Amino acid sequence: MVFVLKQNVSQEKISQFVQRIEAEGYSTFISTGTEHTVVCLIGNTAKIDVDFIVQTNEIVEYGKRVTEPYKAVNRTVHPDDTLVKVGDITIGEGFFQVISGPCSVESEEQVVQIAKSVKASGATLLRGGAFKPRTSPYAFQGLQDMGIKFLLSAKQETGLPIVTEIMNQTQLPLFEEVDVIQIGARNMQNFDLLREVGRCKKPILLKRGLCNTIEEFLMSAEYIMSEGNTQIILCERGIRTFETMTRNTLDLSAVPLLKQKSHLPVIVDPSHAAGIRSLVAPLSKAAIAVGADGLMIETHNNPAEALSDGAQSLDLPQFSALMDDLKRRLSFEGKINN
Amino acid sequence: MVFVLKQNVSQEKISQFVQRIEAEGYSTFISTGTEHTVVCLIGNTAKIDVDFIVQTNEIVEYGKRVTEPYKAVNRTVHPDDTLVKVGDITIGEGFFQVISGPCSVESEEQVVQIAKSVKASGATLLRGGAFKPRTSPYAFQGLQDMGIKFLLSAKQETGLPIVTEIMNQTQLPLFEEVDVIQIGARNMQNFDLLREVGRCKKPILLKRGLCNTIEEFLMSAEYIMSEGNTQIILCERGIRTFETMTRNTLDLSAVPLLKQKSHLPVIVDPSHAAGIRSLVAPLSKAAIAVGADGLMIETHNNPAEALSDGAQSLDLPQFSALMDDLKRRLSFEGKINN
Amino acid sequence: MVFVLKQNVSQEKISQFVQRIEAEGYSTFISTGTEHTVVCLIGNTAKIDVDFIVQTNEIVEYGKRVTEPYKAVNRTVHPDDTLVKVGDITIGEGFFQVISGPCSVESEEQVVQIAKSVKASGATLLRGGAFKPRTSPYAFQGLQDMGIKFLLSAKQETGLPIVTEIMNQTQLPLFEEVDVIQIGARNMQNFDLLREVGRCKKPILLKRGLCNTIEEFLMSAEYIMSEGNTQIILCERGIRTFETMTRNTLDLSAVPLLKQKSHLPVIVDPSHAAGIRSLVAPLSKAAIAVGADGLMIETHNNPAEALSDGAQSLDLPQFSALMDDLKRRLSFEGKINN
Amino acid sequence: MVFVLKQNVSQEKISQFVQRIEAEGYSTFISTGTEHTVVCLIGNTAKIDVDFIVQTNEIVEYGKRVTEPYKAVNRTVHPDDTLVKVGDITIGEGFFQVISGPCSVESEEQVVQIAKSVKASGATLLRGGAFKPRTSPYAFQGLQDMGIKFLLSAKQETGLPIVTEIMNQTQLPLFEEVDVIQIGARNMQNFDLLREVGRCKKPILLKRGLCNTIEEFLMSAEYIMSEGNTQIILCERGIRTFETMTRNTLDLSAVPLLKQKSHLPVIVDPSHAAGIRSLVAPLSKAAIAVGADGLMIETHNNPAEALSDGAQSLDLPQFSALMDDLKRRLSFEGKINN
Repeated sequence: MVFVLKQNVSQEKISQFVQRIEAEGYSTFISTGTEHTVVCLIGNTAKIDVDFIVQTNEIVEYGKRVTEPYKAVNRTVHPDDTLVKVGDITIGEGFFQVISGPCSVESEEQVVQIAKSVKASGATLLRGGAFKPRTSPYAFQGLQDMGIKFLLSAKQETGLPIVTEIMNQTQLPLFEEVDVIQIGARNMQNFDLLREVGRCKKPILLKRGLCNTIEEFLMSAEYIMSEGNTQIILCERGIRTFETMTRNTLDLSAVPLLKQKSHLPVIVDPSHAAGIRSLVAPLSKAAIAVGADGLMIETHNNPAEALSDGAQSLDLPQFSALMDDLKRRLSFEGKINN
Repeated sequence: MVFVLKQNVSQEKISQFVQRIEAEGYSTFISTGTEHTVVCLIGNTAKIDVDFIVQTNEIVEYGKRVTEPYKAVNRTVHPDDTLVKVGDITIGEGFFQVISGPCSVESEEQVVQIAKSVKASGATLLRGGAFKPRTSPYAFQGLQDMGIKFLLSAKQETGLPIVTEIMNQTQLPLFEEVDVIQIGARNMQNFDLLREVGRCKKPILLKRGLCNTIEEFLMSAEYIMSEGNTQIILCERGIRTFETMTRNTLDLSAVPLLKQKSHLPVIVDPSHAAGIRSLVAPLSKAAIAVGADGLMIETHNNPAEALSDGAQSLDLPQFSALMDDLKRRLSFEGKINN
Repeated sequence: MVFVLKQNVSQEKISQFVQRIEAEGYSTFISTGTEHTVVCLIGNTAKIDVDFIVQTNEIVEYGKRVTEPYKAVNRTVHPDDTLVKVGDITIGEGFFQVISGPCSVESEEQVVQIAKSVKASGATLLRGGAFKPRTSPYAFQGLQDMGIKFLLSAKQETGLPIVTEIMNQTQLPLFEEVDVIQIGARNMQNFDLLREVGRCKKPILLKRGLCNTIEEFLMSAEYIMSEGNTQIILCERGIRTFETMTRNTLDLSAVPLLKQKSHLPVIVDPSHAAGIRSLVAPLSKAAIAVGADGLMIETHNNPAEALSDGAQSLDLPQFSALMDDLKRRLSFEGKINN
Repeated sequence: MVFVLKQNVSQEKISQFVQRIEAEGYSTFISTGTEHTVVCLIGNTAKIDVDFIVQTNEIVEYGKRVTEPYKAVNRTVHPDDTLVKVGDITIGEGFFQVISGPCSVESEEQVVQIAKSVKASGATLLRGGAFKPRTSPYAFQGLQDMGIKFLLSAKQETGLPIVTEIMNQTQLPLFEEVDVIQIGARNMQNFDLLREVGRCKKPILLKRGLCNTIEEFLMSAEYIMSEGNTQIILCERGIRTFETMTRNTLDLSAVPLLKQKSHLPVIVDPSHAAGIRSLVAPLSKAAIAVGADGLMIETHNNPAEALSDGAQSLDLPQFSALMDDLKRRLSFEGKINN
């Protein structure tokens, strides 16, 4: 860890600063420049809050952690890829899974019909929204616990494990039989919720927040892992920028970066990122090429009647056609799609 | 509400679309252009989800709500300014209150000392963090319920009403005696939490999210109000942009806009927005000039030792000096600072 | 074109507004809502500046162009893909060209060596910076006209057409023998320069500005085309967002959107977007998969000694290895790489 | 300057790196950490391009300049405030000037009428657009040289010095009699143009780019100053963010920061930033309070007929009323408004 001190700081204040640090068991190297003095910390600085030190020491101009603040999710401390198991499905490097289903669960018939169809097309997990975060209190909020019940019927009918979003920790009991718990973009920094799901034994699908950096994304995964749950799937779903032609800007550069920095699986959600049906296919192909471990694609039996996000949902024949193309690409890439 | 249809849509599909709308009791006007047909909805469209209609009707290119989606918080439906009462303190148009205190409550002595000092300087409410949302699970998370206990002691000693942040609805019982419940920026779209605080009878201080638009901000206030709680204070605290010299970019234009669009009080938090002590004074003066109804300013008895955000906290003499300046400005503006 | 009028506007003012529009030869449809009146313009509104009308008519709340503001570049008016010819190289749909070379031309030897190597690896055009826009006046500004001279020697040696950036119109005479003139991101809205290159008979490679929308990008191409030059290649090179781990955020969604909206070829520059060598390969693969017509990849004979942007340049063996992979992908996609 | 080296770098490579630096006359301090080695440069590093060193040395993980890259504009090298003289008008600390006039010059009568009126209201400089950068090639581009001629007539009639925008260096001869040359936001990084105006002897009004950082803004001023012209006025005019309710987001925090970092005058343009008439007054008051040295406010004799940006222009009575309010504030602040 490196701290650059402000100009013209008294030798006495520098000594106090250095003593304070060494008192906590770190050794230091000091280099005195023509304008600034630099203090370098030696030792395991994992627990040090660099901003905190900068903010609490008037004499420090800036500080920089040389090692990343995330530890448990860091590839340097865990070089092997984490493979997340969902039943007999494997999510992670070398594999490629497609999670598909409706944005919102609307009825038992609907979700069962979609589940059968997407399974036949090659999807290996079923998604569906039971609790829906909506900007307006007047918009459809999802079928709630009934929605989960319908997803479970679809699982029974098809054997597809289910993925659905939790909105707050009081809902956890309702997720007993859910296979993968999704943390939505708006909850990526709902730290209490992250801790709660970190204590349960289920795989967690963590979506990147609309305005969160890659480092913050990894720190949120660190929250989950710090409670003992290592079964985390990262999902890039677009960030908020000045561009308005797409709903969000899908940051595909984040995929190889996340896989370099961490050992966790990374999937991509092109449906929510773009918000435009015609972009789902090209972005799905790009996600495979850039090295993602899977996709989350919205499908609907009748998009024109979808209760939410119809414009970004593929209908079932469109999804089937896309999957045929994607399978050719997966074999080209040598990825296993069980 | 205006819907522009896609090019070359069959007359039959247009009729179906129009019938579907009129079936819901709206009258329509249709204008056929050289390239596009436009359908205008007449009637109270408050409950219509415009995106939903666009997304669920293949033939619609785009739709635009002519009236805003927020109703209860909308000044057009409630022309008078809402005045929020906290004890005998009034927050809203014509008044100006300064909320001050430490970022984090560290000890009973600390918060009591700060409370006495800021009260003497002219602050009318006390702030302090008991539950702290932190990016890193390894960073100080606040004194939790003990922190609230210390804030209440400070209230007892000084009579200052207290403002502190809630992180999830399970904590509500701990906020029984808290005067104003703060919803932090990261929770601005934690819709379940908004609903919960909408059901309690306390003033809510709602902070704007780092990447949320002014319209989304008002929709979150609408969530609270839709549950019956009208005592809402909006707080602009900076948005995330590409600029890195400040922690966030304080959007002062939002203050007059929020006051034009809604009837709610609007305050400004210059400390978190800038993250730099030297900007707190100029931005506080600007907040008064732009028409804000109050300020939230971080203070500390010993910033160099602050457990969090020390770099943006004013020490007590600095705060006292700033308040002297601000009081001159408030009398210049003719604002009441009780 | 649709105009929604403000509430409570007098009938007289509405009539004046409508007359003003019809006076310019457009027919109108008016629909009177409960709260707002909507005026729809019928006719070819290509020349109308919608913002201008909104801004110059107090009674208009907002206006929306139903048809895009760009005409010449619009696929609806020119359904066939434009193929840009550079010597016997074709850039556009169905083809895929890789432009490679150093960020800055440093010496004749260097650029000739790189040119021979990238040609052997499969690049079909040579890039190299002669005039370098640099944030600091103290940074290396390029070899200027000498740099162009060296590029031409490399062309003579290898037959590769050359692509290099112009910084202002007074430099045009120096670009006489240049095959493709590049307009850099910072000049995307240098409208006088766009007009000038619109008058010359060479292909123009137009880079998207760091903070420009896709629509603004197309409007800048429209500037060039409005002067008669239809040989335009669009280049997505990343936009500025809050994310700091990459230099910019490569917006791959822009590729299919640009190809849907316009008939122009679209290429991708992964080197400048990411600013990180290890991302060049995955983003190049993603660019092919998302439907780009080509790539611009920085290479260097000795990146460790590069005078600029060394960290994002591939060395020649790395480029050769990448090209082998890309060729397999191009044959998979059925793209011609002549 | 501090360089942190990558992990596991051979001692030999470190020595080569250190030798290379010392060969250029700098002394170094090296500190070897448990994971990283840190090299600190001692000496005047003004001419060193830190990115360049990072990019050209494989072994360097990152580098940080401890001193700012801008020198001539830096307050540390020039502690006194620069006062820009325009005729007998002074722009800079302690003074406050209001520049007003139409967005576009439309006719001699118009600009003369506006000039007389704004002068009577208290404006001390006249602005007006002769060359207009417009997103669309079909939009009104300004009266060009005729526009400058009309501005000069207005100057003759009123004595007000004139400020108008240049779009490229070939136009310089037309600016012979212009008092202050404006560089627009889109040209903030048109480095050749910056150099050209750096060679002329007139005050330059430099607007911040829509997506440029404060540091980049100061580096562009450094370009001008590096050519010998020290008469520079910085203008904050809003940056591009995700917020769409305002045209841009006015970054008022930039004003005190620019004045801390540099010795140049800083003014604010609330008209273009907001794009909304009703925000001009509150943002103007905020600009005074935050410490700006002046304002640039658009006015029009008949906004409803303005050829561009009418919606953000004040009419002449509105401007007069605003000036009365601003004058009270300037005397409150003790600023001289000659």
